[in-house]
Amino acid sequence: MNEEMVKQEAEKKGITAKKAENFSEWYTQLIEKTEFVDYTAVSGCLAFRPDAYFVWETVQREIDAAFKRLGIANVYFPTLIPEHLLEKEKEHVEGFSPEVAWVTHTGKSKLDERLAVRPTSETIMYENFAKWIRSWRDLPMRLNQWNSVLRWEFKHPTPLFRTREFLWNEGHTVFSSRTEADAERDEILGIYQRVLKDYMALPGITGRKTDSEKFAGAEASYSIEHLVPDGWTMQGPDFHSDGQRFSKAFGIEFINKEGKKEFAYQNTFAFSTRELGAMIAMHGDDKGLILPPHVARIQVVIVPIYSNENKESVLKEAKALRDRVSKSARVYLDDSDAYSPGWKFNDWELKGVPLRIEIGERDIKAGKVVTVRRDTSEKRDVRLGDIEKETTDLLGEIHDNLYKRAVKFLEENIHEVKTYAELKKIVEGKRGGIAQAGWCGSAECEAKAKEETGAKITNMPFGAQDKAKGRKCVVCGESAKFMANFARSY
Amino acid sequence: MNEEMVKQEAEKKGITAKKAENFSEWYTQLIEKTEFVDYTAVSGCLAFRPDAYFVWETVQREIDAAFKRLGIANVYFPTLIPEHLLEKEKEHVEGFSPEVAWVTHTGKSKLDERLAVRPTSETIMYENFAKWIRSWRDLPMRLNQWNSVLRWEFKHPTPLFRTREFLWNEGHTVFSSRTEADAERDEILGIYQRVLKDYMALPGITGRKTDSEKFAGAEASYSIEHLVPDGWTMQGPDFHSDGQRFSKAFGIEFINKEGKKEFAYQNTFAFSTRELGAMIAMHGDDKGLILPPHVARIQVVIVPIYSNENKESVLKEAKALRDRVSKSARVYLDDSDAYSPGWKFNDWELKGVPLRIEIGERDIKAGKVVTVRRDTSEKRDVRLGDIEKETTDLLGEIHDNLYKRAVKFLEENIHEVKTYAELKKIVEGKRGGIAQAGWCGSAECEAKAKEETGAKITNMPFGAQDKAKGRKCVVCGESAKFMANFARSY
Repeated sequence: MNEEMVKQEAEKKGITAKKAENFSEWYTQLIEKTEFVDYTAVSGCLAFRPDAYFVWETVQREIDAAFKRLGIANVYFPTLIPEHLLEKEKEHVEGFSPEVAWVTHTGKSKLDERLAVRPTSETIMYENFAKWIRSWRDLPMRLNQWNSVLRWEFKHPTPLFRTREFLWNEGHTVFSSRTEADAERDEILGIYQRVLKDYMALPGITGRKTDSEKFAGAEASYSIEHLVPDGWTMQGPDFHSDGQRFSKAFGIEFINKEGKKEFAYQNTFAFSTRELGAMIAMHGDDKGLILPPHVARIQVVIVPIYSNENKESVLKEAKALRDRVSKSARVYLDDSDAYSPGWKFNDWELKGVPLRIEIGERDIKAGKVVTVRRDTSEKRDVRLGDIEKETTDLLGEIHDNLYKRAVKFLEENIHEVKTYAELKKIVEGKRGGIAQAGWCGSAECEAKAKEETGAKITNMPFGAQDKAKGRKCVVCGESAKFMANFARSY
Repeated sequence: MNEEMVKQEAEKKGITAKKAENFSEWYTQLIEKTEFVDYTAVSGCLAFRPDAYFVWETVQREIDAAFKRLGIANVYFPTLIPEHLLEKEKEHVEGFSPEVAWVTHTGKSKLDERLAVRPTSETIMYENFAKWIRSWRDLPMRLNQWNSVLRWEFKHPTPLFRTREFLWNEGHTVFSSRTEADAERDEILGIYQRVLKDYMALPGITGRKTDSEKFAGAEASYSIEHLVPDGWTMQGPDFHSDGQRFSKAFGIEFINKEGKKEFAYQNTFAFSTRELGAMIAMHGDDKGLILPPHVARIQVVIVPIYSNENKESVLKEAKALRDRVSKSARVYLDDSDAYSPGWKFNDWELKGVPLRIEIGERDIKAGKVVTVRRDTSEKRDVRLGDIEKETTDLLGEIHDNLYKRAVKFLEENIHEVKTYAELKKIVEGKRGGIAQAGWCGSAECEAKAKEETGAKITNMPFGAQDKAKGRKCVVCGESAKFMANFARSY
């Protein structure tokens, strides 16, 4: 192949849509061309390929370690839930049953009772919790499971943002007092925020959900909300205070220190693979994915540049380089003969490998290599002797830069508004974003805004509540109780 | 409570059946009383409680790390499989469809096509593999997933040994030649054997399955077989050479180095939570579970012995002891006031914690503690200054002893037999065990033995094939081709 053909093939293979101009088409191409995930024979359910699953394994390991430090232990409950259990908590079943996949037959036999493929596990777990908990000595009981859940949504699913099956953690904790239960909220949301920041380079807005947006069955829900580059928001990890709702429905009682029976206080919380959608949408660019270094399966790709004459000597140096760099990073040496260096550059950029190292004969003679950052395209000559330290530093810089860019984007697109007209202008505008405004707290005003503008209240950010004082509700003009973030949402 | 009442309560709570006399009742009590697993609202599906899930997490981490060193990457595919895909490989669908749980409805809608809850993932994965693989450069492709599978068996399920849902790894690898594919077998079985030995303290018999016992769709299957203390066997981890069967059914073709299209060669392999059943059955005793130290969530329990007078000073020392021991082991200090030391001893023995440390005022004055091994009940005075090293050593000794005992049991119960009468005597006897004998290789002889004695050929052990030469088939008397292990099997 000549240079021109290489270029043509790379372009066909590469992303052709512009993120800034047509986000939706760009995101679709990102999904279809980067080998990160793939569609499967089941509509709305994805295959997670190695690069995507590696991201998940990494954040899972970090969250899991943090949970264990808090004394949260892992368990596993069945995938299937008998219908009568799902119905025990009224709001819960109403929230989930429209999306439940039902098992009705096994082999050639019809089941006496339908079994739901779990959309979430409260009901199957709490039946056992009621048996396991007897006295205050059994509490707190802090359990978690890592599994997959299925929610057969009927609107068109967006890959990763909204897929019918996703992987998650579901924490289910039981306490003997509301105070103890409430104290868990900031611990868990703090872990989620830290892992989002330190691994996925993602910021988010933490706050309380409104009553109409809370989890089916919870007393109160809290979320971390992401802003997607098209100006829509996506709900990230969440935490739910269930109070005594499920414990009353499932009979989770304990003998307290005074010897009296009392219903327990419960929380649930989750972090899911939907974050992978927020992550690739946020960081990717017109060349493809940009994987944050700490979650990249391949952090560094080495591309040797050689001719037939010097192939052997260049590859020898490239292998020595790989061995050195592999001490401090996950590295891949692309020594395939099938493609030109230019083709390889494009291919690894498409796949989002954070750092490329080029090594050719001239470099070797000069005792150096060339590093190329995926996030900024910045090229740097690095002395061979410095390459280990420099790689570590560069990966750290890339992570920091991705996070900084994401924070900047988020901050620039939160607009404090005072009038309904301003709110409409923001959330209905092409650029979208978050309109932050006073809200009286009434479900009517919330519904009216949603009906008229398509924007819901994503949450009431903890960090902005001070500003509610003295404000008016952006919808009805009555006195505001909360600062609320209005946005169109996935 | 006085001593007598403590004893009575502990006995009620404890295991009352004798393992040697009534294994089945003993195993049932082990499941029901040790808080390791629990029954759930779904018949035949268990909840894995923290101690059980910890075992699984630990072996999963080890296997996963070994896979990654071989270049096997993790992926995740959907839980549901469309019926038409499941039907693509004839033997495969015949093997699994009697046990498949079918999703027929989602929400209130009937699906156009039924979806199987995965009993195994070949069919959903290989549809994508066919798209991903183009040329020899894409091979080998070695993928794995960690998930749960559902097989709705209709015979009475035995907890852990045979449950309808279990967790496992399913490895799915694709090669460009049969030689490369075959070379994987010993790598994978070697990893499984090592993890069984080093973590679960379990030996097994590795060999080839007969054609009638192989995996549905495979060309050849290999297994590690365990001997359960009641003399029945249980199939452990397995490895399947699929040859080109699935690649032909799913169109997994590649352009080889000669530029010609060829069907790929595939393997699959699995290690499941059924191992937890083999493990607790093998090591447990009449006092309850005995967890091998490397997979025990709590490796050491410290039980302080104090009166009202010296409580404070003893607890202070016990806490200092915990902090020291926690540097080298997972330790729990049971400082609850609710129960006597004797009650606690019984309770932690029931739960199988490998090592107990007792500390009381006299011990403290003498500068020592008392260690009690769960496996042998051996008590030892240990100087406080030596406790860290001694704990590590003792945990190592306990592991080694459990493994040695299990190997001894296995070896003592493999009986080389020459006649059909001897075979019957072994496999039909109360003590059971494995009858190892020559076999001509015919399915008729295999079926006849199974029909008449209830024993199937578990596998043809690699280590015994030398002995086949010159032997006769134990069933028909013709010349033997293989040495085969006959046993009743879970």
